[in-house]
Amino acid sequence: MSRERLYIYDTTLRDGQQTQGVQFSTAEKHQIAQALDELGVDYIEGGWPGANPTDSEFFEDKPKLKARFTAFGMTKRAGRSAENDEVLAGVMNAGTSSVCLVGKAHDFHVETALGITLAENTENVARSIEHIVKAGREALFDAEHFFDGYKANPDYALEAIHAAYNAGARWVVLCDTNGGTLPQEVGDIVRAVIASGIPGDHVAIHTHNDTENAVAGSLAAVDAGARQIQGTLNGLGERCGNANLTTLIATLLLKEPYASQFDIGITREALTGLVKASRLLDDILNRVPHRQAAYVGASAFAHKSGLHASAILKDPSTYEHIDPASVGNARIIPMSNQAGQSNLRRRLADAGIAVEAGNPALARILEVIKAREAEGYTYDSAQASFELLARRELGELPAFFEVKRYKVTVERRKNKYNKMVSLSEAVVVVKVDGEKKLSVSESLDETGSDRGPVNALAKALAKDLGRYSEVLADMRLVDFKVRITQGGTEAVTRVIIDSEDGEGRRWSTVGVSANIVDASFDALLDAINWKILHCGAA
Amino acid sequence: MSRERLYIYDTTLRDGQQTQGVQFSTAEKHQIAQALDELGVDYIEGGWPGANPTDSEFFEDKPKLKARFTAFGMTKRAGRSAENDEVLAGVMNAGTSSVCLVGKAHDFHVETALGITLAENTENVARSIEHIVKAGREALFDAEHFFDGYKANPDYALEAIHAAYNAGARWVVLCDTNGGTLPQEVGDIVRAVIASGIPGDHVAIHTHNDTENAVAGSLAAVDAGARQIQGTLNGLGERCGNANLTTLIATLLLKEPYASQFDIGITREALTGLVKASRLLDDILNRVPHRQAAYVGASAFAHKSGLHASAILKDPSTYEHIDPASVGNARIIPMSNQAGQSNLRRRLADAGIAVEAGNPALARILEVIKAREAEGYTYDSAQASFELLARRELGELPAFFEVKRYKVTVERRKNKYNKMVSLSEAVVVVKVDGEKKLSVSESLDETGSDRGPVNALAKALAKDLGRYSEVLADMRLVDFKVRITQGGTEAVTRVIIDSEDGEGRRWSTVGVSANIVDASFDALLDAINWKILHCGAA
Repeated sequence: MSRERLYIYDTTLRDGQQTQGVQFSTAEKHQIAQALDELGVDYIEGGWPGANPTDSEFFEDKPKLKARFTAFGMTKRAGRSAENDEVLAGVMNAGTSSVCLVGKAHDFHVETALGITLAENTENVARSIEHIVKAGREALFDAEHFFDGYKANPDYALEAIHAAYNAGARWVVLCDTNGGTLPQEVGDIVRAVIASGIPGDHVAIHTHNDTENAVAGSLAAVDAGARQIQGTLNGLGERCGNANLTTLIATLLLKEPYASQFDIGITREALTGLVKASRLLDDILNRVPHRQAAYVGASAFAHKSGLHASAILKDPSTYEHIDPASVGNARIIPMSNQAGQSNLRRRLADAGIAVEAGNPALARILEVIKAREAEGYTYDSAQASFELLARRELGELPAFFEVKRYKVTVERRKNKYNKMVSLSEAVVVVKVDGEKKLSVSESLDETGSDRGPVNALAKALAKDLGRYSEVLADMRLVDFKVRITQGGTEAVTRVIIDSEDGEGRRWSTVGVSANIVDASFDALLDAINWKILHCGAA
Repeated sequence: MSRERLYIYDTTLRDGQQTQGVQFSTAEKHQIAQALDELGVDYIEGGWPGANPTDSEFFEDKPKLKARFTAFGMTKRAGRSAENDEVLAGVMNAGTSSVCLVGKAHDFHVETALGITLAENTENVARSIEHIVKAGREALFDAEHFFDGYKANPDYALEAIHAAYNAGARWVVLCDTNGGTLPQEVGDIVRAVIASGIPGDHVAIHTHNDTENAVAGSLAAVDAGARQIQGTLNGLGERCGNANLTTLIATLLLKEPYASQFDIGITREALTGLVKASRLLDDILNRVPHRQAAYVGASAFAHKSGLHASAILKDPSTYEHIDPASVGNARIIPMSNQAGQSNLRRRLADAGIAVEAGNPALARILEVIKAREAEGYTYDSAQASFELLARRELGELPAFFEVKRYKVTVERRKNKYNKMVSLSEAVVVVKVDGEKKLSVSESLDETGSDRGPVNALAKALAKDLGRYSEVLADMRLVDFKVRITQGGTEAVTRVIIDSEDGEGRRWSTVGVSANIVDASFDALLDAINWKILHCGAA
């Protein structure tokens, strides 16, 4: 069977931005576009030029891409020509090789929302698409509410998309705008569209996840003959989100019948960057990555049941439907059972620590991890603290310095202008190379704003560590996550700190205590020890 | 068309507990079982009696349920009779009316994992099911790896389930254990099972979400004739989770063709408790509810696009596939546009504040909310702070007391036994009824453990507020959530505090600052003001 081409169209930067609380900066749009391009999607929709300043700015400074960079807009309004519609002109002026215009295909929306006749709407669709084609661009027609429209008035829904197709649209995009159409119905309606005369390789599918079926609906459309899938990274999007391209890309490349049937622009090699691309978006959104996400979640290949874990070690296919490495993910086997030791050795090797099988330190390390996890620590997301813990048990971690005590004061009071102001001050006493050192720092940044007690502590702790001070100079705290968790029988605070240095290293450490400042201090200590270990253990 | 009965089988307490990091206490199992029973699921699987102390304890103190309470276990081992298998005896001794036993249906697993012949395995399945039926219990056979087994050796997979069915199993559960089977294939194989002679009303489907298709796979099985669906609340479960019953229940009751075709044990009235049941599980797990979850997510009916929002106000069906109230959810329309005022009035009414349309305070409140949200505040999950803000703008919030200043000290040092100990101390100065009051508290709890600076502050703040002290006596801080977010151009800390009082009131307040102690203090202040407003504004 000859392989067919299936196209991937990403709309993270446009429909994805409809998510509550999401607003990308121009720089972030560039970052995401580059990541999508590295992955190898066919189309990257950048936004709606003219609709808001960020979108306009992004199109003025277009990213350099292998993918087709696409501008989104809407079909011309009634009562003026396509040439004289200034909203459409804004879109065309962005100068992209592909242009996607949304228009109505549901009679109810045409008549009530737009308040025009069905014939006028058809005319608007046809003339707008013609306008794009005449300008030598590739045209896509985004048929809003297509599935609901088809159910209400199939003749008119088909009339609208045929108008676009006949006017030269390269793709007719069937949108399930409200997300309520179930997969079976999506398949049936796509088949009807193709039977009506629009070839499947001109039909695109655009679903939403309101019934948790956006991925299944996209696959049902492909089964029915559609040859372009639209979606977003991590399923970002308004309400419950769009079809999740992260999941769809992996499924199309790894699962049958799709893997044998289709070529997509994404290679198996690029697929190993899937987890990285998914995490990049979460980082930009400052979101906690969804642990249970298909393929890319941190738990996607975590085998908790002891039975499963031991079978996995004999043959991974017993409880895994794909090889986690194919998407850049990794298997997690809880370390508290027999399967744990070999898993631990692999994690140690990842951290650059070679330990031979049978070394009694392995059992000790597992014991410590188990005890600490019972106290509320987690090492899955604090690799640097894991490394320090292991090296300590292996006798490979020198005591660079010793903290004798610290004290932090947080104060809020009215200043002389009767305005409430706050200030924190930290004193840290350490012993380095036999010498006692007192450091004090306050929490104000360059602009005079109070950054709080953890900031003051971090500065005081790093301020004077004798011969280690120099390697700490380029280190900075880039993220700080706090949650309340269970530690033994009581609630404790878990702090995870991400640090970065001038050479682009980034590492995560964890601290746990009922006292949030104490937990932060522990995580800071680990962060500093890790940095000294890697860059300055002279 | 006569309506058919479709059964819902919940395994949150068993398969759900296979999730990384999830371990329910016996009390929590009771809480979840009651919530499921109120919803109206047909079966509640409680765990594996004998497998671990919590499961055993739960079965000793069985919940009183309308649902069939079910014990899970495994088929007898080879080389002994069902009567003499002590693992099976442990399950039977739990005395439940229904018993579900997992067994192999995949030749590869029989021969390599169990190391027995296919005939021996079939015998184990048949004798185990017979044993349950003879004891007068309802038997379910959970066919592990059924779909992969069917693809590898259809004859043997069918032999295994027919052995169970012929031995009297009420249900044969087809499990997609590794979660890799796509919906189309699930449907095809379920049809083949029914064609082989097991009636659809004896066939159950059990899927996992490894390709984000667990819900679609369950629906495909129902389309093919299966009449029992197994899954978990919120899709909890190992790796990427089980089929999400929260989504499936709503789909079966609200969406066609299911709504017309089936009766399920859950009423439309009980369905309005769906959001509540979903949040209860998140509360128990101390998880942040997934905002974009289908039907129940906080964003599931959030309309960010201005175009959508104004259409929604004219006719909700324009951009909503179901009525949010039918699942106990609510529409969210961003308050920063024209649609905002009527939405705000609804939220105010929810908080017991009646404001007539056109009151200029509405625009002012929207302005303040918009400005505060830009600083990093969120009012979606801090209803009490929202209420205080609105009452302040409406001139309905008296100044009960004034905070003049506070100071907190956090100290860690070695004690006389050379052990590191920490202690926090807070001083708060307030003015109540013209009188200045200084209070000091430290962070140690009854057991002498340090609970940190926020605890010390909370105690000092509530310690002496004059005539308000009495109403604050029964108030306690029950949850504390922290995250780093964007406030204007810089990162700030957002603290959300949940408080509770002796009369069962629970309220949430928010504070934002670059300084975590300051943010906590703001949230504490709101919490205390709300309590005084509602219980003691004498």
